[in-house]
Amino acid sequence: MNIVDAYKADFLAYLNATIKIKEPKNLYEPIQYILQIGGKRLRPILTIMTCDLFNGNVNKAYDAALAIEVFHNFTLIHDDIMDSAPIRRGKETVHIKWDINTGILSGDAMMIMAYKCFENYDEGIFKKLMCLFNQTALEVCEGQQLDVDFELRNDVSIPEYIKMITNKTSVLVAAAMKMGAIVAEVSEEEANKIYDFGLNLGIAFQLQDDYLDTFGNVETFGKQIGGDIIENKKTFLYLKSLEICDENDKHKLLNYYNSKTEDSNKVSEVTRLFLENNISKFTIKEIEMYTSKSFEILETLSISIEKKELLKNFGLGLMKRSL
Amino acid sequence: MNIVDAYKADFLAYLNATIKIKEPKNLYEPIQYILQIGGKRLRPILTIMTCDLFNGNVNKAYDAALAIEVFHNFTLIHDDIMDSAPIRRGKETVHIKWDINTGILSGDAMMIMAYKCFENYDEGIFKKLMCLFNQTALEVCEGQQLDVDFELRNDVSIPEYIKMITNKTSVLVAAAMKMGAIVAEVSEEEANKIYDFGLNLGIAFQLQDDYLDTFGNVETFGKQIGGDIIENKKTFLYLKSLEICDENDKHKLLNYYNSKTEDSNKVSEVTRLFLENNISKFTIKEIEMYTSKSFEILETLSISIEKKELLKNFGLGLMKRSL
Repeated sequence: MNIVDAYKADFLAYLNATIKIKEPKNLYEPIQYILQIGGKRLRPILTIMTCDLFNGNVNKAYDAALAIEVFHNFTLIHDDIMDSAPIRRGKETVHIKWDINTGILSGDAMMIMAYKCFENYDEGIFKKLMCLFNQTALEVCEGQQLDVDFELRNDVSIPEYIKMITNKTSVLVAAAMKMGAIVAEVSEEEANKIYDFGLNLGIAFQLQDDYLDTFGNVETFGKQIGGDIIENKKTFLYLKSLEICDENDKHKLLNYYNSKTEDSNKVSEVTRLFLENNISKFTIKEIEMYTSKSFEILETLSISIEKKELLKNFGLGLMKRSL
Repeated sequence: MNIVDAYKADFLAYLNATIKIKEPKNLYEPIQYILQIGGKRLRPILTIMTCDLFNGNVNKAYDAALAIEVFHNFTLIHDDIMDSAPIRRGKETVHIKWDINTGILSGDAMMIMAYKCFENYDEGIFKKLMCLFNQTALEVCEGQQLDVDFELRNDVSIPEYIKMITNKTSVLVAAAMKMGAIVAEVSEEEANKIYDFGLNLGIAFQLQDDYLDTFGNVETFGKQIGGDIIENKKTFLYLKSLEICDENDKHKLLNYYNSKTEDSNKVSEVTRLFLENNISKFTIKEIEMYTSKSFEILETLSISIEKKELLKNFGLGLMKRSL
């Protein structure tokens, strides 16, 4: 078993020992359900790994890791209600399996449970973790709101888009790592570096998700190709096209994205338009820019070369799906 | 201006100076809206008053008071969605004025904002306040779930009902007071006494609400009389009736509460049945029991007789609406 699989196995054992169904069952069963239907457990692994990299006591990282995972799953329950999503990780979403009210209330309880996970920490570390968690959680809500707002706007800029994906997904990855550093009691400077490493890697990862949704292959991506195009999602690919392509292509693209009618050629036509305008290359360049930035930050950390390699390889492993 | 009005005015000034609309506006405007449409501000007043009673620095109580008020208003947004309630404090509810998704997301952000309110406290007090807040917030969710569960059950006992109203409303009143005591840095023992005082007074207050909904008068109660009967709410009055009345009355009551059809005589018939079975007297006795319990606890507090009087009079003022 490699070290990452070991972190995951230990984390899952901790999760299973900690999160139990209590009374009232109708509140806690959906929480148990969403936490048990799988997921990569990427964020908690990052918390534990970071604590370990900084020679912290790994046993102390589990509570912070659990807080991050519980919070992440709470956002999935509420986001799935807002998106009317029926399926998550191949299973019924909470508001479908139960109902919307259950999804709202169990989600609320989960957010509080995430906060409760920190209670075992000593006052000083407790406050540091809590303040980071507060800021991160609020940014995630702001990112979700920007995502909703962008659906109705036709003038979203690429910097605005980067800000949205940063808040919606990257800050939680970054905070997961910084929490590992806080638990390991490293300096504020080191903790902020690992945050920035996670933030940039998170942005690269999200942009790669945009890329793979159009240019990936279904086996390695694990999702239907072209989903973003079908749903008129204003991804980096779409926004970059509007920025650089000629009036004719711009007009075509706007037409495709503003029509509600199904067009069986839409995915292939839009993909062709992206390719003709070199959007795939621009996207790869952007992904590489954020990946490099994260690796540059990594170099400045005060950890051994071996540990830098471990972290770099984990990052590369995440990005391997593509390009 | 009496002291309570002064606490309220100071609290409102603090709220207005602290809670501002930020970007993204669609996230923060509903938060500003719900916090500005009024309310008695009972809970934050209790936090500030309790801190003052224990000779604490009142200026330090505002953040905890604000956390409690923001959390309380978050629960109102989500509860109104779950109850499909169109009106709150005479104004449109958030999910009607905006939409359900906005209500969910702005509510989530509010809960995090409530947690953020504590960030100005020093590590030791910060952790004490946070742990109390976590426990209380989770109990409020459990109370809401029990309330939902009870709608579908026909075998709710009075102890179960007391547990539900305790969690749904009293624990937050109790925690509001205990937070004032924590900020004033009193002993754990004193802080727990004031918690128990608030808890019992909160239960008395909620039972009084049940009583007034049927036996009050519309001018002093401020709500339509008979609302609970129309909505088939399993209040203390209803549960006590099922416990003590004969088979004939029990049968009548169950019929009224299980039929979905409108019956213009329902309110007067059920009220008559309650009166014939002395339910009003039983309820008054129960209210008095919880009120006395809270005043007995008050007597054991290590504060001056004048301060005990102030707190007792505030409690009596709250209970004055009735009986």
